[in-house]
Amino acid sequence: MSGPVTRLAKLGGALTPNNTSSTLPSSSTTNSFTPSPSSPLSGTASHSQSDQNANSSPSADLGLIGLAVMGQNLILNMADHGFTICAFNRTVSKVDRFLANEAQGKSIVGAHSTEEFVSKLKSPRRIMLLVQAGQAVDDWIETLIPLLEKGDIIIDGGNSHFPDSNRRTTYLASKGLRFVGSGVSGGEEGARYGPSMMPGGDEAAWPYIKDIFQSISAKSDGEACCDWVGDEGAGHYVKMVHNGIEYGDMQLISEAYDIMKRGLGMTSKEIGDTLAKWNKGVLDSFLIEITRDIMYYNDEDGTALVEKILDKAGQKGTGKWTAINALDLGMPVTLIAEAVLARCLSAIKDERTKASTKLEFVGRANKFEGDREQFLEDLEQALYASKIISYAQGFMLMQEAAKEYKWKLNKPSIALMWRGGCIIRSVFLKDITAAYRNSPDLENLLFDDFFNKAIHKAQPGWRDVVSKSALLGIPTPAFSTALSWFDGYRTKDLPANLLQAQRDYFGAHTFRIKPEAATEKYPVGQDIHVNWTGRGGNVSASTYQA
Amino acid sequence: MSGPVTRLAKLGGALTPNNTSSTLPSSSTTNSFTPSPSSPLSGTASHSQSDQNANSSPSADLGLIGLAVMGQNLILNMADHGFTICAFNRTVSKVDRFLANEAQGKSIVGAHSTEEFVSKLKSPRRIMLLVQAGQAVDDWIETLIPLLEKGDIIIDGGNSHFPDSNRRTTYLASKGLRFVGSGVSGGEEGARYGPSMMPGGDEAAWPYIKDIFQSISAKSDGEACCDWVGDEGAGHYVKMVHNGIEYGDMQLISEAYDIMKRGLGMTSKEIGDTLAKWNKGVLDSFLIEITRDIMYYNDEDGTALVEKILDKAGQKGTGKWTAINALDLGMPVTLIAEAVLARCLSAIKDERTKASTKLEFVGRANKFEGDREQFLEDLEQALYASKIISYAQGFMLMQEAAKEYKWKLNKPSIALMWRGGCIIRSVFLKDITAAYRNSPDLENLLFDDFFNKAIHKAQPGWRDVVSKSALLGIPTPAFSTALSWFDGYRTKDLPANLLQAQRDYFGAHTFRIKPEAATEKYPVGQDIHVNWTGRGGNVSASTYQA
Repeated sequence: MSGPVTRLAKLGGALTPNNTSSTLPSSSTTNSFTPSPSSPLSGTASHSQSDQNANSSPSADLGLIGLAVMGQNLILNMADHGFTICAFNRTVSKVDRFLANEAQGKSIVGAHSTEEFVSKLKSPRRIMLLVQAGQAVDDWIETLIPLLEKGDIIIDGGNSHFPDSNRRTTYLASKGLRFVGSGVSGGEEGARYGPSMMPGGDEAAWPYIKDIFQSISAKSDGEACCDWVGDEGAGHYVKMVHNGIEYGDMQLISEAYDIMKRGLGMTSKEIGDTLAKWNKGVLDSFLIEITRDIMYYNDEDGTALVEKILDKAGQKGTGKWTAINALDLGMPVTLIAEAVLARCLSAIKDERTKASTKLEFVGRANKFEGDREQFLEDLEQALYASKIISYAQGFMLMQEAAKEYKWKLNKPSIALMWRGGCIIRSVFLKDITAAYRNSPDLENLLFDDFFNKAIHKAQPGWRDVVSKSALLGIPTPAFSTALSWFDGYRTKDLPANLLQAQRDYFGAHTFRIKPEAATEKYPVGQDIHVNWTGRGGNVSASTYQA
Repeated sequence: MSGPVTRLAKLGGALTPNNTSSTLPSSSTTNSFTPSPSSPLSGTASHSQSDQNANSSPSADLGLIGLAVMGQNLILNMADHGFTICAFNRTVSKVDRFLANEAQGKSIVGAHSTEEFVSKLKSPRRIMLLVQAGQAVDDWIETLIPLLEKGDIIIDGGNSHFPDSNRRTTYLASKGLRFVGSGVSGGEEGARYGPSMMPGGDEAAWPYIKDIFQSISAKSDGEACCDWVGDEGAGHYVKMVHNGIEYGDMQLISEAYDIMKRGLGMTSKEIGDTLAKWNKGVLDSFLIEITRDIMYYNDEDGTALVEKILDKAGQKGTGKWTAINALDLGMPVTLIAEAVLARCLSAIKDERTKASTKLEFVGRANKFEGDREQFLEDLEQALYASKIISYAQGFMLMQEAAKEYKWKLNKPSIALMWRGGCIIRSVFLKDITAAYRNSPDLENLLFDDFFNKAIHKAQPGWRDVVSKSALLGIPTPAFSTALSWFDGYRTKDLPANLLQAQRDYFGAHTFRIKPEAATEKYPVGQDIHVNWTGRGGNVSASTYQA
């Protein structure tokens, strides 16, 4: 088994809290909009858990509603960093259970009513919701509004859809309140020991929450994996893309596993060994590491548990939102889309089981031939290259969103926020941070020297993996789409000229001419219709859109 | 050049109207809900164009609003079939121009105001809108409502989004009016000589429009390519999927063209010759035929015009809607999604042009080697197999939509509607019609004997094409995704077991056990959480969704 130390080193935190002082870190003064001359958190946090419920004077630095695993762990994390937190939950018995168990001996108080909860918070009140995204968030907001005062802050730390966070920012501003929608990534362990945090919304709230957020977040080379993302729903947007990328990373690893298992006939142990090796190279990351652990995790009968797990994955969430948003913005984010659709295909297991009895493999090769070691190196390169494409696509999407929604997004900061604490944390993100720090206006990740070299080096092996998998009948939707996208992206003249000719032929949709082929008859920038058949009218389509 | 006769034979119509009698076809009496004992269209159509505008007594069988190319051609088509049509347009001068030119000598009248337009229509009034989808449709509906009487019918023949048609059906029903949302496909030529028509909405309207619709629609082996699709927005839904499939077909042909052009170095003429050959086999279809014509169409300088057309394709439309709907319903409709995203990639031409100078091809092979003739046969099979996958995915989507939206959809009728008149018409759709007629409850097209044999036969060549294109650097997003999907679909045990293990590892999301691996400890159907690391709590995630 891998040691927890390695994993936690990558989390950017430590198993035990690394900041046990009870004085708060002084707030940064670099924010030009700091509304008060003193630090927003200048009151000293008191470890007042001794008389938790009896004490009703405002003592808590932050109140958190929602005591599922993420909420509980965030509270414990905040308490470990010297903040006093008031815990609350719709089902109040959960509060008592939490106080009597996990929260024992920590700077955590509780409340038995919303009124009591609010009364225990220092002003301006900082309230964080960790409840189910959707109606529950709006319900809590409505419950809280009458109890709050001008300048109080509501933070939604769930996986809300960014248009909801846009709406809530505006709505709460109209009530004199400040809304923050914050992505929180890292699962239960991240929440406990250092998550990646992506806050956005009303920027006036940032100085009041910055210390708490940056204290509890993961650290990467000493830098907090948390920074202000942007206006309105920008924080939840970036978290959404993060999750989409996570879908992509997981799908890519799954394809590599399938190729090793079915293509090369490797055992779980052998696959684990390969992943252990990869985890020391360019693929060094949390997901490779846990996949190695999973490959090594045997059930009581001594065989790998993973092989017994039902192969049906859900997809109703942020991955789907990313793919839909990409389609809406017209951005070719193919890898995430394929990853989401691969989960959809996995979900129809009954139909696949039936199909497996009716649809046989037919091909000119039926088993792997060639140099196994070379192929495993190729596979590592294929995974690396595909991952580069996925991140390049993700950053293209965020870039376009910033333009579309008029947000300022700080690309180096985004990469930094993902470097530690979250599911996709990796050495790789250090290289992305460096790329965007070198050149904040970098048009595409592939234009950065480091990644440019990397993708050129990876190409031959990547092509072989896609090619061989097609011949052997192993599905590689993500590897394949990454390669096709790369080959399309680096192509000046795609066959879309034919699409435009077809559309003009059957629907009089008109086309434009390539600049290098322009003539007096066909000038650049003009909508041209040709009578391809020598029949038909001269009316251009203005209604019908095929 | 190909002769128009061949093409029109495929349109299922004829160059000149094949029904010039002025008496109307008697209405079908098979509709159990026919609201009047006599035929709804029992009035005899009169060729009353002699005194078009002076005559204000109700004389027109149908009124059509919107005189862009589709509207004009539909009117001419209806007039050719003996119906009297009243033409109207927001910009009234267009009405006069139309009456003085294309409409001359035909049973077409016009109007100069909405009131006059409505007054010229027989009761119940049938009004068809061919206007821009979206607000314009709602605006016209609001304009018309006060002028109409109970039982009058408004037909939206544009490319409206199906949720709008759902809404309009309900809204007009609340006003005592009947709404029909009808897909109309076939471009300008289809509209003129026989489109594919897919009406849905308020079924009580169907007996009143059936004769007109089925008369003017394309015919395939004597059957009208028009039938009632289903409730609410079902007609526009099926048209949406049709358009998505059209995106897919066009993308597949474009990839084949690119492989021939860049992979094999073939000239446009050689590609045209290959397509001409393919058009006599399993790929026999309108799109292959027009692509052949396009390859043969030379500019004045004697070179193929297609090579001069700018390779930027739009995608804001029904293809995108199909992909988004597939994601919403959780259906793995990968081919249409890739086709839409390929258009997005084509659209960022400036960035691609820049990328083409920075990203070079690197691979172990750099030119095609092997038997060219065999490879062209493989390519034909790859295109055919990918097309089968795309249609299988499209029918899966419609099947799921019918379940989700509680529509009855008649699958053999849908295939029949697409057999003639529309852009995707092909011999292939005859085989699909046959498959669903043989077995209306067919779970998947690939389970039908004919397509099952076809896909098995096509596999080896298909695999080689995907494999070689990857090695040679030609992008094949649609061919590749089709093959990956097929290999995934026929796989009982996909690597999604690993996804589930990962999700449980980092987020305590739980997993289920494969039935064949169930034990007392891990029973079937139970949500299981394992402590993969030997650390951490036992709280399952109930809020956080990665």
